[in-house]
Amino acid sequence: MSKNRQIVLVKKPEGVPTPDNFELRQAPLPEMPAGGVLCRARFLSLDPYMRSQIAGRHPSGTVAPGEVMLGETVSEVVRSDAPELPAGRLVRCMGGWQGYSAHAAGEVQLLDEEITPPCHPSLALSILGMTGLTAWAGMVWQAEVREGDCVLIPAVTGAVGSAAAQFCTLHGARVIGIAGSPEKCRFATESLGVAACIDRRSEDIGARLGELCPAGIDVYFDLIGGSLLQTACSHLANHSRIVLCGLMAEYNRPERDPGPPPGLLIAKRAVVSGLVVYDYEPRRQEYLGRCLPLLGDGKIRQREDISQGLESAPEAFCRLMRGENFGKAVVAL
Amino acid sequence: MSKNRQIVLVKKPEGVPTPDNFELRQAPLPEMPAGGVLCRARFLSLDPYMRSQIAGRHPSGTVAPGEVMLGETVSEVVRSDAPELPAGRLVRCMGGWQGYSAHAAGEVQLLDEEITPPCHPSLALSILGMTGLTAWAGMVWQAEVREGDCVLIPAVTGAVGSAAAQFCTLHGARVIGIAGSPEKCRFATESLGVAACIDRRSEDIGARLGELCPAGIDVYFDLIGGSLLQTACSHLANHSRIVLCGLMAEYNRPERDPGPPPGLLIAKRAVVSGLVVYDYEPRRQEYLGRCLPLLGDGKIRQREDISQGLESAPEAFCRLMRGENFGKAVVAL
Repeated sequence: MSKNRQIVLVKKPEGVPTPDNFELRQAPLPEMPAGGVLCRARFLSLDPYMRSQIAGRHPSGTVAPGEVMLGETVSEVVRSDAPELPAGRLVRCMGGWQGYSAHAAGEVQLLDEEITPPCHPSLALSILGMTGLTAWAGMVWQAEVREGDCVLIPAVTGAVGSAAAQFCTLHGARVIGIAGSPEKCRFATESLGVAACIDRRSEDIGARLGELCPAGIDVYFDLIGGSLLQTACSHLANHSRIVLCGLMAEYNRPERDPGPPPGLLIAKRAVVSGLVVYDYEPRRQEYLGRCLPLLGDGKIRQREDISQGLESAPEAFCRLMRGENFGKAVVAL
Repeated sequence: MSKNRQIVLVKKPEGVPTPDNFELRQAPLPEMPAGGVLCRARFLSLDPYMRSQIAGRHPSGTVAPGEVMLGETVSEVVRSDAPELPAGRLVRCMGGWQGYSAHAAGEVQLLDEEITPPCHPSLALSILGMTGLTAWAGMVWQAEVREGDCVLIPAVTGAVGSAAAQFCTLHGARVIGIAGSPEKCRFATESLGVAACIDRRSEDIGARLGELCPAGIDVYFDLIGGSLLQTACSHLANHSRIVLCGLMAEYNRPERDPGPPPGLLIAKRAVVSGLVVYDYEPRRQEYLGRCLPLLGDGKIRQREDISQGLESAPEAFCRLMRGENFGKAVVAL
């Protein structure tokens, strides 16, 4: 363990990133701060917001050329000056795209023992982590989804979308999904409880929404922005709720798309709210208390798209940004 | 009282309406329905939404060429088949732009005696009527304005804006107004409790907002849409609330403007909600219970822009649509 392997950004991509925007390099092991820990990454989370960090417009941080990519990891404590974080324990931390990371004790969260067995520890990066919390906060806390709601969820087999779809179904809602292939659509209807799933690459979304949601959409979980947000807003029911959470349509582009016409929102008495998951950090335990039994009872599931080895991260991230992942993108190290 | 004078729309305006889009005509007195009332208009309310009715895109109704303009009136019952609506009493009804209107008993609301003395009965069309209810619903019920909020209110000397500004000030908020002349700005700061007022015809609104709201806008009451909505959204505070209520910027145009970029709303965790005042009809008495004492105690005021005679309505409406009214536009008949 004398060297640290890292993936650095070498060049800001224009448009969809390609693997040659990144480079694997060797660096010395990081210095452990006094009272802190040295961690070895076991799983690295890949998420669309990272594209936004590269573009320099994400509140969580910026990655400039020459810098190691940021990212959340499930890591193992390998050296510790912090009695509450003994070597050998798994933690959740912002380890980044690298083999080893060093942290002050307050910067890492010990994984509850209950999260490891029976669950795979990588789930702390998805359904038991940020993407699950995002889905719950958006649908249950912000949109207050309820029995009988018609809910539209794009990227429905993705990390946030698949969790959201299952939570909405469990709350008695009828979920319409959108996904990028017939295989994903089939998974959504067969395994996520989605009532119907629109293939965005081959179907006319507006026309299908008219057929599938004749009384309008009560809740739209916007993970996309762009023209899909406009289309969804043309099919709203009165008193509908739109949770703005992701911008997949514009992460790869420098421009920012406008939102739906205000006249449309007035006519439908719609409520649109922005969601930043960091705001819900204080409620993470409350969320886990709701989610763990559901997962334990097999009432919800998490599909993962796991690639092997740190060197696979650039291509896996590029696949994610092309919408080609199928489930939560994770790198096993 | 043998003839009914009416203002009819003769031609759909393109852009800002002009008086020759309207015509005064004589018609027979309307037939009183069995069990109903015949009313003589005393005051007619002029409101920007009427432009939208002419354009055929308002939920409350459409006015086509050849038809009498719609509008709310304070009218006097002159003949009655309804014991609860005796002749001589004042009512609020959708009398339209005409001298006489006939209604089923359920279509007119008796004005509380308390509204007449000490108040001028025309106030039932503004602060004690729809525009006041709109302002209260938007700021108090939807935005939940509170002590210390920085609130931006455009058209701040208009009917809805002036009520909203006063309600917000009474709730401990700091109100920044926008108005269309130095005289209106002075009125806003001297008589409506507005902390500062931006002259939209001579000042750079974005630059002024940066100076006046360095910590951002907590509440924006959008009566305008268009570019002002975009500008306001570039100056939001975290967890801000935007109430979408009017579209003055696009009433005179066929196009619909887009809304603010969703990325902006996400970053600020903003909540945007559409307001249709008809939804608050069941809470009108509750509102009056709050407003009447404030009005009686002189804590709020209502400036009116009253024109005389039915024949003055077209030009008064055109002035309103050019933003040249100063206070609630009302026609005294």
